[in-house]
Amino acid sequence: MKTLYVLLSLATISTSVALAAPEMPAGDTPDPYRDLVIKTEGGLEVTTTDGEFSLELGGRILADAAIYDEDKNALGNGSELRDLRLDLEGRLYADFIYEFSVDFADGEADVKDAWFAYDAVYPWKFSVGHFKEPFSLEELTSKRYLTFMERALPNELAPGRSIGIGAHWSGQRVTFAAGFFGDDYNDDADDEGDEGWGISSRLTFAPWAEERSALHLGVAAGFRRLDDEEEVRFDTRPESHITDIRYLDTGKLEQSRSIALLGLEGAWVTGPFSLQGEWMQAKVERDTGTEPTFDGWYLQASWFLTGESRRYKQDAAKFGRIRPLSEHGALEAAARFSSLDLNDGEIEGGSSDNLTLGLNWYINRQIRLMANAIFVDNDRFADADGDVEAEDEPTIIQLRAQVDF
Amino acid sequence: MKTLYVLLSLATISTSVALAAPEMPAGDTPDPYRDLVIKTEGGLEVTTTDGEFSLELGGRILADAAIYDEDKNALGNGSELRDLRLDLEGRLYADFIYEFSVDFADGEADVKDAWFAYDAVYPWKFSVGHFKEPFSLEELTSKRYLTFMERALPNELAPGRSIGIGAHWSGQRVTFAAGFFGDDYNDDADDEGDEGWGISSRLTFAPWAEERSALHLGVAAGFRRLDDEEEVRFDTRPESHITDIRYLDTGKLEQSRSIALLGLEGAWVTGPFSLQGEWMQAKVERDTGTEPTFDGWYLQASWFLTGESRRYKQDAAKFGRIRPLSEHGALEAAARFSSLDLNDGEIEGGSSDNLTLGLNWYINRQIRLMANAIFVDNDRFADADGDVEAEDEPTIIQLRAQVDF
Amino acid sequence: MKTLYVLLSLATISTSVALAAPEMPAGDTPDPYRDLVIKTEGGLEVTTTDGEFSLELGGRILADAAIYDEDKNALGNGSELRDLRLDLEGRLYADFIYEFSVDFADGEADVKDAWFAYDAVYPWKFSVGHFKEPFSLEELTSKRYLTFMERALPNELAPGRSIGIGAHWSGQRVTFAAGFFGDDYNDDADDEGDEGWGISSRLTFAPWAEERSALHLGVAAGFRRLDDEEEVRFDTRPESHITDIRYLDTGKLEQSRSIALLGLEGAWVTGPFSLQGEWMQAKVERDTGTEPTFDGWYLQASWFLTGESRRYKQDAAKFGRIRPLSEHGALEAAARFSSLDLNDGEIEGGSSDNLTLGLNWYINRQIRLMANAIFVDNDRFADADGDVEAEDEPTIIQLRAQVDF
Repeated sequence: MKTLYVLLSLATISTSVALAAPEMPAGDTPDPYRDLVIKTEGGLEVTTTDGEFSLELGGRILADAAIYDEDKNALGNGSELRDLRLDLEGRLYADFIYEFSVDFADGEADVKDAWFAYDAVYPWKFSVGHFKEPFSLEELTSKRYLTFMERALPNELAPGRSIGIGAHWSGQRVTFAAGFFGDDYNDDADDEGDEGWGISSRLTFAPWAEERSALHLGVAAGFRRLDDEEEVRFDTRPESHITDIRYLDTGKLEQSRSIALLGLEGAWVTGPFSLQGEWMQAKVERDTGTEPTFDGWYLQASWFLTGESRRYKQDAAKFGRIRPLSEHGALEAAARFSSLDLNDGEIEGGSSDNLTLGLNWYINRQIRLMANAIFVDNDRFADADGDVEAEDEPTIIQLRAQVDF
Repeated sequence: MKTLYVLLSLATISTSVALAAPEMPAGDTPDPYRDLVIKTEGGLEVTTTDGEFSLELGGRILADAAIYDEDKNALGNGSELRDLRLDLEGRLYADFIYEFSVDFADGEADVKDAWFAYDAVYPWKFSVGHFKEPFSLEELTSKRYLTFMERALPNELAPGRSIGIGAHWSGQRVTFAAGFFGDDYNDDADDEGDEGWGISSRLTFAPWAEERSALHLGVAAGFRRLDDEEEVRFDTRPESHITDIRYLDTGKLEQSRSIALLGLEGAWVTGPFSLQGEWMQAKVERDTGTEPTFDGWYLQASWFLTGESRRYKQDAAKFGRIRPLSEHGALEAAARFSSLDLNDGEIEGGSSDNLTLGLNWYINRQIRLMANAIFVDNDRFADADGDVEAEDEPTIIQLRAQVDF
Repeated sequence: MKTLYVLLSLATISTSVALAAPEMPAGDTPDPYRDLVIKTEGGLEVTTTDGEFSLELGGRILADAAIYDEDKNALGNGSELRDLRLDLEGRLYADFIYEFSVDFADGEADVKDAWFAYDAVYPWKFSVGHFKEPFSLEELTSKRYLTFMERALPNELAPGRSIGIGAHWSGQRVTFAAGFFGDDYNDDADDEGDEGWGISSRLTFAPWAEERSALHLGVAAGFRRLDDEEEVRFDTRPESHITDIRYLDTGKLEQSRSIALLGLEGAWVTGPFSLQGEWMQAKVERDTGTEPTFDGWYLQASWFLTGESRRYKQDAAKFGRIRPLSEHGALEAAARFSSLDLNDGEIEGGSSDNLTLGLNWYINRQIRLMANAIFVDNDRFADADGDVEAEDEPTIIQLRAQVDF
């Protein structure tokens, strides 16, 4: 009976000739009798049993609240939807995969992943579309799986998503990714100047990467030629998104031709304990002959009180979903120190240190409650380019309810 | 054979080990052999047979046209998409439900429901995210199931959706809901002032609630502390959405600290006939010491010529989908009188009465055509805060084609 | 065994009584035991075996890059997401179909198809909502299936999508479509003036329409009463979307009451070779007594080096998806000459000729790479209404990566 079970489950959900016929004549005809595997864990996954075609429909809702223990400046207690994302992923003709992801949290349609890739030449993957440039472990890890509510301060230097083409190579211990990119989907140079472009590359090495034990080392480099406006601006909030105050702000650096990026990454997982840290630097080449250089770093430690491990995905060289061991979920305590310095010579963008204490309750694989306490320490230039008082030292309490499906 | 049928239908659509394995190790492992029930009635429903996981994908399209028999002011005949909504709902790990709903009708991404809830402690449900504050029978009933094309004038006083947390308790005859909320997802106080917040609560009692016979009584109260700008504005169109003229408009009431809301509801269904009415009041507390108070009410009657009943859902204390008895659909005639008075003391926001006659043809459960005739009677202060002529008395004819799936 | 296969595949994916019961009492009850056919080719199709209900979920990603060999004006090299579209289609109660389609490529929610239709009276179809007015073969053909990356210059004169009602009749060789429309979903007259409205109609005749051989002839006419602002403006880019320069631009033609449209279409497919051409004209009726008249035309030829044929869909009188014959995909070479003249009398909107050479690689049915070279020849009035230099003759190279699922 068990055998029959399995046979049937593989055999029966098939596409009928009647329906499929008008769409499938000669050529590289998909077999109309293709069997399917269908699964829901809140979202939906449909896969042909031969794995050649698939569709996955899902999304996420992140609802946040923040209370600011203000020091010199008003920051504005409040609530927001941090993410409200719809995701479609799939596979076509065995050799192609795609992802389609849009975020609606702020009432607009903020395009996230929108790309497809050819992955038939193992272990290569070639991508085209709008996706994350290969730079920074924390940037590449989905916000769903991050230990803290917001990425660390130096993330302002990471390039994030752009439109481009990329290649990814993934070996037993080593991964390498590189790409050539235009600007982000919604950037457009004024007055019909040319768009900027950039190249990014990342090399990682994992001496070991087991279920509950891993060591990750990485280095990344990038170069970006700015668009014809030749302006660049680095500015960032403290590690809290509800306020709009961006203490650190270089203002527009005009006559800027290009940016060179450098990043170093490391992560170590041993049982319930993990460490992770990054350092990154952006050097701006200006027509004025100066080269303002900004850098930042963070170091974080996390400990699962309930015994789980952070899950390192070696092939993608980033972290993945936490799976609670108990039916009461998983509990994680964590701390992070991060620092970003946007001062260099005459550029007084400010410098800030953020210390964050975090507590996460993974109720199940898809629902998580988070609490962060952030202690901000700004220097005398951290004045939002003159808009607020400097040397502000607020404390922030923020909460998140997260579901992804 | 029938038995085999059923056995197979329960057994065969299962998730394969091969596929599920990499996603499902130890812990509160969802059974990879979980059987599914899949259904389409235009949209898609996928549910595990144990009911622990599910996904529902659907949406709605509402296309409207309006012709204005103008009196003193131009209102602008025209057409619009009133709703164009995508909906995802689901259940996770038996105990959690979520809803994800965005409206694209006006070319932006207007976030509607975006929440998840824990509903494992019967008869409680605890919600977090962006959802409707518990206030007003008509506001809580989906626009798909409303008798008229637009909600009644006093709906301007109802709080609608905000980001917050809520609890819902549902007994045999009584329901109680309450919540604590920040502002709506896209509201943000200027200049980093604190967001507003509010509490809402609703208590309903249904002495009887059967298939074709129900009596509903309810009372709701709310309090809202305004954000740091301390401004509030009540303004509303006549019961027609295509025009942009908001005859009733208090203008910005500055130095306003808070609003107290009170609402009374009643509905009676007996066979094809039903009555429904509400009264609600908003009292504004101002720093000036005054307390401008606005109120409105409506009363509506509906009669299904084809014998159907409005469907009262006792557990949610609101109305649901109409199911035509005949294959030619259901025909409903209805009338509503509504009134809103935004005048109080020195505040001259205007007062208006709208009489609406409506005819609905429910072609089937998911498609409906609607026609409304609205007779508007504005007082001498109903001048859109000075922008249009007062004492306007236009007549409006409007039509809707609605599908939801 | 084969028989068992088929029996089971038809029988087993059924809806359970348990689940369906609370949603399905008397009336036009959908059978809860309805069998389903489920299919994925990257997207998802779910259909009841009786064909009465269905849902199709899909989308598309189009990523473009353009390099401008500039002549007199800067055009701005760059990249963009050209389309990022989510699509839901379905059937309800056998007799109704709907389509729900939104594009997110530019960071907003640009509504595309949003309509439903009654198609139970063969061969009629009656539609309501937001859909394409019946005018122009190229406009009505999905961008996914067009031979070139952008529609030809005269497409500026075609009405595109509006909110309205329409009827479509489709016989053996002849199709006829007509509709009455308001404005596009996001148009709204200023100052509460009335919206514009229009009628469009299209008649096509296919003396033969076989798998690899077809002849299509068509004529279309339209009339549009402009809204109360009485302004119309025709302006268009060269056949490239990344630049924002619209060389051809009549400026706002004020005191314009209405537009009369006329279009002629032809297409001929014989094996791998095809020709297609259109001519269209817009005549503006102005209160000034003048009748500025603009027209344009294009002619294109396409040749499948790998032997496929363009697929003419006789019932819809437009072109459909290409199905590669080989597993290495299909290769198509094509050329188009197009011309649009927006000069008439005192209106000097400019005139332009674009010659395009195109090469398409259909890797499979759903993935396509495109390359276009466009040679632009503008006249002395093609100055973007005074914003750029006239008589510009740039050459454009543009590339597209396209997936639809």
